[in-house]
Amino acid sequence: MRKEIKKNAALELNPNVSVDCVIFGFDFDKLNVLVINRDGVDGVQWALPGNLIYDDEHLDQAANRVLAELTGLQHIYLEQIGAFGDPNRISKESDRSWLQSIRTQPEARVITVAYFSLVKMEDYQPQASSFAKSAEWIPVNEIRELAFDHFDILQTAKSRLKQMIKIRPIGFNLLPEKFTLSQLHKLYESILDKPLDKRNFRRKIQKLNIVMSLEEKQSGVPHKPSQLFMFDKEHYLLLTQNGFDNFGF
Amino acid sequence: MRKEIKKNAALELNPNVSVDCVIFGFDFDKLNVLVINRDGVDGVQWALPGNLIYDDEHLDQAANRVLAELTGLQHIYLEQIGAFGDPNRISKESDRSWLQSIRTQPEARVITVAYFSLVKMEDYQPQASSFAKSAEWIPVNEIRELAFDHFDILQTAKSRLKQMIKIRPIGFNLLPEKFTLSQLHKLYESILDKPLDKRNFRRKIQKLNIVMSLEEKQSGVPHKPSQLFMFDKEHYLLLTQNGFDNFGF
Repeated sequence: MRKEIKKNAALELNPNVSVDCVIFGFDFDKLNVLVINRDGVDGVQWALPGNLIYDDEHLDQAANRVLAELTGLQHIYLEQIGAFGDPNRISKESDRSWLQSIRTQPEARVITVAYFSLVKMEDYQPQASSFAKSAEWIPVNEIRELAFDHFDILQTAKSRLKQMIKIRPIGFNLLPEKFTLSQLHKLYESILDKPLDKRNFRRKIQKLNIVMSLEEKQSGVPHKPSQLFMFDKEHYLLLTQNGFDNFGF
Repeated sequence: MRKEIKKNAALELNPNVSVDCVIFGFDFDKLNVLVINRDGVDGVQWALPGNLIYDDEHLDQAANRVLAELTGLQHIYLEQIGAFGDPNRISKESDRSWLQSIRTQPEARVITVAYFSLVKMEDYQPQASSFAKSAEWIPVNEIRELAFDHFDILQTAKSRLKQMIKIRPIGFNLLPEKFTLSQLHKLYESILDKPLDKRNFRRKIQKLNIVMSLEEKQSGVPHKPSQLFMFDKEHYLLLTQNGFDNFGF
């Protein structure tokens, strides 16, 4: 379908609008983000997967297409974070020379619309293609620099995630269906970026009643196997219907 | 400053990116939104205040400029809602003919970045200028149609407001410094779009401890004057520092 549309000159890439994707994953120890090494002139240049949109695309569609083109990841629910439009977001020399090498209008002002998603890392082995030389999961806290304003976008996505986990149990999207309370604890610590007392954490989680314990333990682990739990979606929905995440009303 | 910049042809209006503003106000009875009647060919066409951005502007700056140009409202804290980019957002005939009359590239794909704000209505008497024939406060629930996708943007802003009022006491931005509990009650009802039991509401508000009663009553009202209250910001900040708006941690 894309090929057919490309024949129509009116439906070329829009020079002024791009999308960028912040895909978070959890490796049972740290929060990771999916980055690409773009085909730069000066060696390694890490960036969020992103590119210009086509003039006939919805923004959400564009985000899904670009993510698939660069990293192979498909069928991912992407949520919009917002638009980033600092007029100086393309001021680094390395970004400018990369744009020169790839864009027909490298000097154009580009506003980017950022999306984020939380995925089960083990389900998504990225496969780089297009202008991505490689696509990799990297721990968020080890990232010091990214192309364009992608570092700022990443920080915004991380803050959003921090806020959201306080009002919605989205963390479960990062875990396999069955998990241990230690894994859940580690996940919350890595999202909130601070140590949480283990006993208090367990008490609170159990009080919330949003996980249920299974008649099943871990297998194939080198330590005493821990009990497995599942997210109790039904009870969670009941809680929210009763106005749980709410400032009093 | 704008005039000087306009001399530079490179810094003209960007044909592909606009901003739109959803300004909410409260008239002690209903939630209102600020709309303009744009200078259309077929008579009245209500729209959110919005226009294309300049290539040298930050998005936030553009939103503030456009709002001031069309309605005279200035110094307003605008919060971004997100980008709206349906490729068919400019498909209505009335929108197309209006664009023909005003834009140099009326057929260009436009992505809009929407902002919203809550203001004390009595402080802002809109003054229409530029392509706005008039600028008026209209009750949100009386609006059935707006230009482009502005009706969808308005609904999104309203949902956002509904969510936010559950976790942040933003409603106070819509009230004068001193207010009665009846006014606060009416405000919550109009934002949440449903009746709230008066006694329960008062009990909850007082339990939250985020309003303080003043040694002062209404004056100049045709009924028995009610006690006045103020938002207790200090106590609210204390609550949030203790992690009040929060899913358990």
